[in-house]
Amino acid sequence: MGATPPRSPLAPAAFPALPEVGGLSLATIEAGVRYEGRTDVMLARLAPGSVVAGAFTRSATRSANVLDCQAKIGTHSDEGAAIIVNSGNSNAFTGKAGDGSVSAICEAVAKATGLPASRVFTSATGVIGERLPHDRITGKVKDLTAALGSASLEDAATAIMTTDTFPKGAGTTIHIDGQPVHIAGIAKGSGMIAPDMATMLVYIFTDAAIDQPTLQTMVSALNDKTFNCITVDSDTSTSDTLLVGATGASGIRVTDTSVGFMEGLRSVMLDLAHQVVRDGEGATKFVEVSVTGAASDADARTHALAIANSPLVKTAIAGEDPNWGRVVMAVGKSGAKADRDTLSIWFGDTLVAKDGWVSPDYSEEKAAAYMKNSELVLHVDLGLGGGTAHVWTCDLTHGYIEINADYRS
Amino acid sequence: MGATPPRSPLAPAAFPALPEVGGLSLATIEAGVRYEGRTDVMLARLAPGSVVAGAFTRSATRSANVLDCQAKIGTHSDEGAAIIVNSGNSNAFTGKAGDGSVSAICEAVAKATGLPASRVFTSATGVIGERLPHDRITGKVKDLTAALGSASLEDAATAIMTTDTFPKGAGTTIHIDGQPVHIAGIAKGSGMIAPDMATMLVYIFTDAAIDQPTLQTMVSALNDKTFNCITVDSDTSTSDTLLVGATGASGIRVTDTSVGFMEGLRSVMLDLAHQVVRDGEGATKFVEVSVTGAASDADARTHALAIANSPLVKTAIAGEDPNWGRVVMAVGKSGAKADRDTLSIWFGDTLVAKDGWVSPDYSEEKAAAYMKNSELVLHVDLGLGGGTAHVWTCDLTHGYIEINADYRS
Repeated sequence: MGATPPRSPLAPAAFPALPEVGGLSLATIEAGVRYEGRTDVMLARLAPGSVVAGAFTRSATRSANVLDCQAKIGTHSDEGAAIIVNSGNSNAFTGKAGDGSVSAICEAVAKATGLPASRVFTSATGVIGERLPHDRITGKVKDLTAALGSASLEDAATAIMTTDTFPKGAGTTIHIDGQPVHIAGIAKGSGMIAPDMATMLVYIFTDAAIDQPTLQTMVSALNDKTFNCITVDSDTSTSDTLLVGATGASGIRVTDTSVGFMEGLRSVMLDLAHQVVRDGEGATKFVEVSVTGAASDADARTHALAIANSPLVKTAIAGEDPNWGRVVMAVGKSGAKADRDTLSIWFGDTLVAKDGWVSPDYSEEKAAAYMKNSELVLHVDLGLGGGTAHVWTCDLTHGYIEINADYRS
Repeated sequence: MGATPPRSPLAPAAFPALPEVGGLSLATIEAGVRYEGRTDVMLARLAPGSVVAGAFTRSATRSANVLDCQAKIGTHSDEGAAIIVNSGNSNAFTGKAGDGSVSAICEAVAKATGLPASRVFTSATGVIGERLPHDRITGKVKDLTAALGSASLEDAATAIMTTDTFPKGAGTTIHIDGQPVHIAGIAKGSGMIAPDMATMLVYIFTDAAIDQPTLQTMVSALNDKTFNCITVDSDTSTSDTLLVGATGASGIRVTDTSVGFMEGLRSVMLDLAHQVVRDGEGATKFVEVSVTGAASDADARTHALAIANSPLVKTAIAGEDPNWGRVVMAVGKSGAKADRDTLSIWFGDTLVAKDGWVSPDYSEEKAAAYMKNSELVLHVDLGLGGGTAHVWTCDLTHGYIEINADYRS
């Protein structure tokens, strides 16, 4: 970590006002895991009766914390749950010692909260491959627990930042039979972001009353259309974790037919996913890549990710160059079905390429002017079928190199 | 194209002395396709009796030139062949007009040389999606043909450069039954370089006497271990072309059991492939990624490419940071089989990680000192089986961003 980078130019103006989620209490603390003079651990306590669902990195070298969360996620207990997260050290690739660190932290939280250790979920984010000094965390657990209720979601979002330039939060209140149900969440993550899911940690809380299998089904489905559709640099973290806790404190029962709840949860997940891209390391442009007309949805996704991950496309965007030739290149290399002569490409509303060649009324000036926007939509139609996909990414700039070529970020 | 970038720090000291290949004559000319004040077209004439083999991009949006070469490559004629290559405009994604440009150039060369158009091979490299002003080339074909024999391989390598910072050549002389057989080739390509194969154009010539199917078999097999094992930025060009012409002028017959010839051809191909990486846009480090112990050769290749293409690994190398955690990350995300607890990683001779954790006698100082070299070997052993792979790449630096974020390079 060098000096704190300036706030991303794509950041929202301020942390949003978030609804209160009944049954949730939070605390943060300075444990000095790696960083000095800032909070680096957050604890969330979910009331008795809460259920937890989740989604995790598919990395073959995932961290001890992720493996532990995965083992616990489907189990049930009436006692509620706790989530403890540290920044500064990811506890990833730390061998058997990493498993020991997770156990030590879970035991400490269990002891302090009265929960069984099987209901304590942990995450860690930061440098890979260095032993987590977990004593610094366990030594603070008693103080953290005593402080539960004193921290806001913004405080929690701030404590889990690494190279993030702003804390990320999103929330919504939906109504079921006229009664309010609250959903609010936080996220961190700015590099190593790609589907499956990134050094991305996301915690979403709701006071809906919902059973765990229903919540898990919703979370898995929505994850595929939100966090698994963003990419900053095509790199995938060993620690990605999404946990969604439902406390039931609203007393409002949500079932798998609750379209309003599902839509509310989707909007919070998508908002947080977009914020992660907006804080992509070095990002100056927020880009939606929209692919239509592919032979299948899977093909559309393959094309969209090939475009969104192409260094040549991403540097062209950084240079505000409507270089649609590089988009053609990315489509061609993706491996999914494409026909040179049926491709169409739009930059915003400007049709730049049609039927395999530059559009007859293409205006370079118009396209170049469009590229100066900080929010861009690239739309590719394959002209082959009904497959569609949307992914979100950012440009590739000197800022990315600066952040990541520093010694041991 | 902005100002010419400085010669890559990884470039060889000088263009090599290359053997004379009997039956080959070359010419270059300034046609003003896009660049001013430099040669931008080269013509190679292969004597009657020559055969031509090749390998091409697998891009679904490959250029008209590539499609035309692929249609001609297996056909036979006793009249020899010609290869004409322009820089400045790739004639890719130029719709039906692109096909017309290829035909016009082939017809012009056929008329000037007396060859049938079916024996004229073309390549084009440069900007995608803009109509090739082929009249500028066809208008020079008579002069080019008249000048055949006046240009060296270095002249030809220079004429086909785009963002290359040095012309690339390699050659060898092997002996069969005590008689010399010459092999010499040139290449261009510095961005959009990844397997399948890159904006990479490669032309290799030999005076061996060999039948086309045998040469093709050799070229295809060797391509998989050379040009398809390099990556600069994971992007794949729509124009990649490798052509190997054998004139037979040495009178030495080569068969599929000619191990010496195959080894000579392999060394020339690997040398050119390495030079392409050494001229990777912005490259300051030449990196071999060596993977052993994988469950299969295919898995080893998947891991090696995931490491070599990871922006986080490539920026760590640029920063001279022995950040093996990012190597673990890349292995984890590759999708190929890996076990966190059997992984070993070496930077050069330094064992940095073993059995899923930092090596007990790891010296950060020693590893950091090693990273200051301009040529690096990263070795990963999966501890799972006998699969191996070697790929070559470079680091990701500010130079790459500078070159590619310029308006319309």
